[in-house]
Amino acid sequence: VYGGKPQVDAGIEEQKKRAGIAAPAFVENGMVVGLGTGSTVYYTIMELARKIRDEGLDIVAVPTSKATELLAKKEGISLSTLKKHPLIDITIDGADEVTPDLVLLKGAGGALLWEKIVASSSRSEIIVIDERKLVQKLGRTMPLPVEVNVFAGPGLEERFIALGALPELRMRGISPFVTDSGNHIYDLKFESIEDPKALEKELNNIPGVLENGLFLDLTSKVIVGCRDGTRVLEGQIRDDALNKGE
Amino acid sequence: VYGGKPQVDAGIEEQKKRAGIAAPAFVENGMVVGLGTGSTVYYTIMELARKIRDEGLDIVAVPTSKATELLAKKEGISLSTLKKHPLIDITIDGADEVTPDLVLLKGAGGALLWEKIVASSSRSEIIVIDERKLVQKLGRTMPLPVEVNVFAGPGLEERFIALGALPELRMRGISPFVTDSGNHIYDLKFESIEDPKALEKELNNIPGVLENGLFLDLTSKVIVGCRDGTRVLEGQIRDDALNKGE
Repeated sequence: VYGGKPQVDAGIEEQKKRAGIAAPAFVENGMVVGLGTGSTVYYTIMELARKIRDEGLDIVAVPTSKATELLAKKEGISLSTLKKHPLIDITIDGADEVTPDLVLLKGAGGALLWEKIVASSSRSEIIVIDERKLVQKLGRTMPLPVEVNVFAGPGLEERFIALGALPELRMRGISPFVTDSGNHIYDLKFESIEDPKALEKELNNIPGVLENGLFLDLTSKVIVGCRDGTRVLEGQIRDDALNKGE
Repeated sequence: VYGGKPQVDAGIEEQKKRAGIAAPAFVENGMVVGLGTGSTVYYTIMELARKIRDEGLDIVAVPTSKATELLAKKEGISLSTLKKHPLIDITIDGADEVTPDLVLLKGAGGALLWEKIVASSSRSEIIVIDERKLVQKLGRTMPLPVEVNVFAGPGLEERFIALGALPELRMRGISPFVTDSGNHIYDLKFESIEDPKALEKELNNIPGVLENGLFLDLTSKVIVGCRDGTRVLEGQIRDDALNKGE
């Protein structure tokens, strides 16, 4: 773990920090790095910036949100886009829930669409979380966010209810929350999500639903900040799938 | 056919007009009417406006594009939105290709996302076309449009090629074409589309792909303007599927 002897029985913030700053160890000179969004990746971004300043690490980063873009720019990280770098070497991102087989629920921060595009454009995706995020089944602690076209309206709610969800339009004050792409988000509360793969397909086939917060077959590694250190869960290697086009 | 004796061996424009002005016969007082986009629906909109003026037809319309909204407003048709009227009684729209089992390829005009949302919110969808649009297999005369998030970039092209398509980013002059929702469109040229249902699911599961121009199980009736009159193809009744939530 970075920064000396692990603190015993670390609180949530310290767990996030442990996971966040451990991830840059997998970043090498010359890499194109996808930067996720959220309070754990915050530490990753700060640690990458430190390595660039102190150790001469040479990378170019593709941010997954306007918030991350602003932070990375402020910290002096060279930024690019998927248009210039369509194939990303490694992406480091957070998650709201993670199952033992590395299926993720994401999107509490509202950046799921860009995050999923970047994840699906990456050779490897490292997820950094605190240990509260590890769950046996998705959907029990967090609603599933779906990004929808603003034109679609409340007709979608019946579709979501038919899938067993309690839908709630995400608000910011008295107005609907608007994503970086100008869309709205419905948070779908399930008792639990029994079959994420089937649910993802059903959601994707509803006109007006643009993306959902289920991430399947996208994660290479999960770094968990724990009370007593860090744990690493290994997933599949994605190089085969992504190298085809090269 | 509206307007007296059918012209023999009508040209394309006359075929469009025949189909377009035949559709309002299915519109009744008090209905919420979805208005599609394009050169054939143009005649539908003009005929609806005439019926409102001359016959006191009383409807409220939900447009599927900014272009249709402007035209309908100019013609004095009362407009609403899916937010106010989530369930539409009847939608009248065009199509670029139609198979004998009423599967559609749409989106040459760039309005596919809103058109598909409105279609999927309608009890019944009437498609108006000229007879050139009738095909045995989709994709042979027209590329399949897919609407994509502007953030996604050229990484998507490899995904489309892997599906057997030749992708082309739709341009308007020297810049990419931008849809009413602020997205881009890729036109996918296939030799022919053998399994529209499977292709639609594959496309919907690619992060960054927001919608595609395949319309399955959405069409109730197709009115075809022909050289010698009009033909009506009947599809399934959708009332059961849509009345569940009422």
